[in-house]
Amino acid sequence: MTKERRQEIVEAARAARRAGWVLGQISGPERRQILLAMADALERPDLRATVLRANAIDVALAEEAKSKGELAQALVDRLVLDERKLIGVVDGLRQLAAQPDPLGRVSVDRDLDEGLHLRRVACPLGVVAVVFEARPDAVPQIAGLAVRSGNAVVLKGGREAAKTNAALVEVLRRALADQGFDPGALVLLEDRADVDMVLTLEGDIDLVVARGSSSFVRHVQSASRIPVLAHAEGICHLVLHGSAQPEMAASIAVDAKCGYPAACNAIETMLWMPGAEAALDRAVEALTERGVELRADAATRARHPSLLPATDADFGHEFGALVLAIAKVDDLAAALAHIERHGSGHTESIVADDEAAAAEFLARVDAACVFHNASTRFADGYRFGLGAEVGISTSKLHARGPVGAEGLVTYRWLLRGSGQVAADYGPGKRRFRHRDRGA
Amino acid sequence: MTKERRQEIVEAARAARRAGWVLGQISGPERRQILLAMADALERPDLRATVLRANAIDVALAEEAKSKGELAQALVDRLVLDERKLIGVVDGLRQLAAQPDPLGRVSVDRDLDEGLHLRRVACPLGVVAVVFEARPDAVPQIAGLAVRSGNAVVLKGGREAAKTNAALVEVLRRALADQGFDPGALVLLEDRADVDMVLTLEGDIDLVVARGSSSFVRHVQSASRIPVLAHAEGICHLVLHGSAQPEMAASIAVDAKCGYPAACNAIETMLWMPGAEAALDRAVEALTERGVELRADAATRARHPSLLPATDADFGHEFGALVLAIAKVDDLAAALAHIERHGSGHTESIVADDEAAAAEFLARVDAACVFHNASTRFADGYRFGLGAEVGISTSKLHARGPVGAEGLVTYRWLLRGSGQVAADYGPGKRRFRHRDRGA
Repeated sequence: MTKERRQEIVEAARAARRAGWVLGQISGPERRQILLAMADALERPDLRATVLRANAIDVALAEEAKSKGELAQALVDRLVLDERKLIGVVDGLRQLAAQPDPLGRVSVDRDLDEGLHLRRVACPLGVVAVVFEARPDAVPQIAGLAVRSGNAVVLKGGREAAKTNAALVEVLRRALADQGFDPGALVLLEDRADVDMVLTLEGDIDLVVARGSSSFVRHVQSASRIPVLAHAEGICHLVLHGSAQPEMAASIAVDAKCGYPAACNAIETMLWMPGAEAALDRAVEALTERGVELRADAATRARHPSLLPATDADFGHEFGALVLAIAKVDDLAAALAHIERHGSGHTESIVADDEAAAAEFLARVDAACVFHNASTRFADGYRFGLGAEVGISTSKLHARGPVGAEGLVTYRWLLRGSGQVAADYGPGKRRFRHRDRGA
Repeated sequence: MTKERRQEIVEAARAARRAGWVLGQISGPERRQILLAMADALERPDLRATVLRANAIDVALAEEAKSKGELAQALVDRLVLDERKLIGVVDGLRQLAAQPDPLGRVSVDRDLDEGLHLRRVACPLGVVAVVFEARPDAVPQIAGLAVRSGNAVVLKGGREAAKTNAALVEVLRRALADQGFDPGALVLLEDRADVDMVLTLEGDIDLVVARGSSSFVRHVQSASRIPVLAHAEGICHLVLHGSAQPEMAASIAVDAKCGYPAACNAIETMLWMPGAEAALDRAVEALTERGVELRADAATRARHPSLLPATDADFGHEFGALVLAIAKVDDLAAALAHIERHGSGHTESIVADDEAAAAEFLARVDAACVFHNASTRFADGYRFGLGAEVGISTSKLHARGPVGAEGLVTYRWLLRGSGQVAADYGPGKRRFRHRDRGA
């Protein structure tokens, strides 16, 4: 990287902080206005046409690469930005606009003593860098979350989507400028070298959201001392309890495996318990119809000899494709132990009519999302009602599961006194009142 | 480290997770009962005597080391556990017991659709490792916070406090056992090699709280892929605005510098603005009386020629002793710029009668704690009413400033459905309701 490019990026990050600072200072309704303007801009026929034209080029190039065997079909699918996806994005921006403002929220409001008033007030993080895969609809989602939370954002999408991302960022920056704000709050990086450089900007970037393969996320974690929100692999399980309804089991299994096999909230393994034979049979039938390659352990193959044999490596593995591992477990405890060993702490679901079993599953699984009688595919910021997501965090700290605007917010402790000093308090001296206002 | 010791620690960490899991499952009142039992135990004359005797040995050894010039007086002071400090600790445990339970709190309670109910529920992190300096009163505080938040804890204190820490842990483990719980939830490590080994236990430790010098904290951050809550240096500023009352300025400056110079919430630099001459004069006089070495810039020395000259290195430096750097700034903007450049994001305070200046300071300083007319020494979990603190976080993520039980808690998203699949929702299909219950 040239010295000039390096300097350019540092300056863009610092300018982004200043521009973002203004977004954090204006009122919630003003931030909402920007989100609505962004949604409107993406609906304007001329601007939308520009974006769709740019996307057509990216897709054509990707199709060419695919024909040479350099790209997978799943990536091409992910790359396509059509009218339907745009409607979803615009809808998400409006959903975000309608949400309660995450800033200024007072989570502690306490009189420590007469005239010594403590408040803990939500505020933006500052500058957030988001590195994500080739899915251009992520651009307006992330930009929207940044505006909602009063942060500046430095973006780097997959290079296959370069033209689409640039067109989208242009539309969004223009919406910012039209509303009278500095478009510098939204920065688009060019390549991987840019990203590696940004990872070293400890004082200028407050959070890195890393989306992608687990090896990529680990690279980011090792390369940077900036806190990383890891959106890595999802090794999700579906458990069929003995009380599972066969039709429900089959329908959830198909949705969770086939809806979007490359998604992190798709299932990779199905576990079944004694009593769940009918549910297993129905699920195997439905999954086979949908062309899913099923790799089963010996106990499952005893019942379904036509299935491929699973190896140990198939369990705890993210296929990201129409492949599913299946194993029998002796009981709920064995299912929980399997998940504890192989799960990635993303999303785990049980199909069960037995309330006690469902309650135990919900109580015991240590994952970001734990579901009962619902597809793992619901683990998603938009579906959860967050408007959008910057990622799905598999770490336990700060934000877990789908991360919306709230995950881009921190707080400050503000104390207003009238000259108090700490030495006046203590045993035999003044005592703190610690009275919560409104409590 | 021997293989045996390594195995011993791994097993202790895993046993701690199991023991801690029970603490997270019992009811809030049961956890409160354990905290009260811990407080009672520390008040029992026989147990207290054991602790104080152990402390007397640690202190005697430290005095000897001090006489050889191997230890500083500040460290010896910190090491002493007397009746007064014990009263504070016991009081803190009872304060913690009286606090609302941080677990089970539902922060999202939303119907995504008919019969598709999402809740975000607070839960423990699991196993928290806390490495802290030679301050034995931290042991019951950290143990209390762990119980309050349903976590197991692996502790490592300063080696100078080894006997005191062991005696305290013994009392606390006994209180756990007397209440019918596994004392294995509270583990005391022996030496630095143990710590380095624990830092590699990614799957077994959920959070490392690192307290100490910034070089130690950086070592922990580099050595571990476990998330680190950094309690590092505090480079805190006191700003005297032109409208500052001289007596208040002097009193806050003395408290913030002299109350406990080694504390991270002590001030290291005082900035003054035109108009604050009388406040500066009074503060300089009071600080000099208390024996503080004042290192001043040229503008300050023009007014107080007897002060030592400050070098550039004195600003942004944590003295941890009775030394204070002083500089004149042209206006509030210059003060804010100085703090942005030199502060460590810990605690910043302004003395001002001017409401507009105070409001601007509170709005603009990006630090964990921002104060007006109050000593920086209030930045403390106990004083903030958190009962105790595992540390004061200078990072922005997860927890910022004094970290109490809430900082040891994460959440899970629990979804209960009746067979819903994601493919049923979308444009032209079912729409999500996203209705918050009780809203």
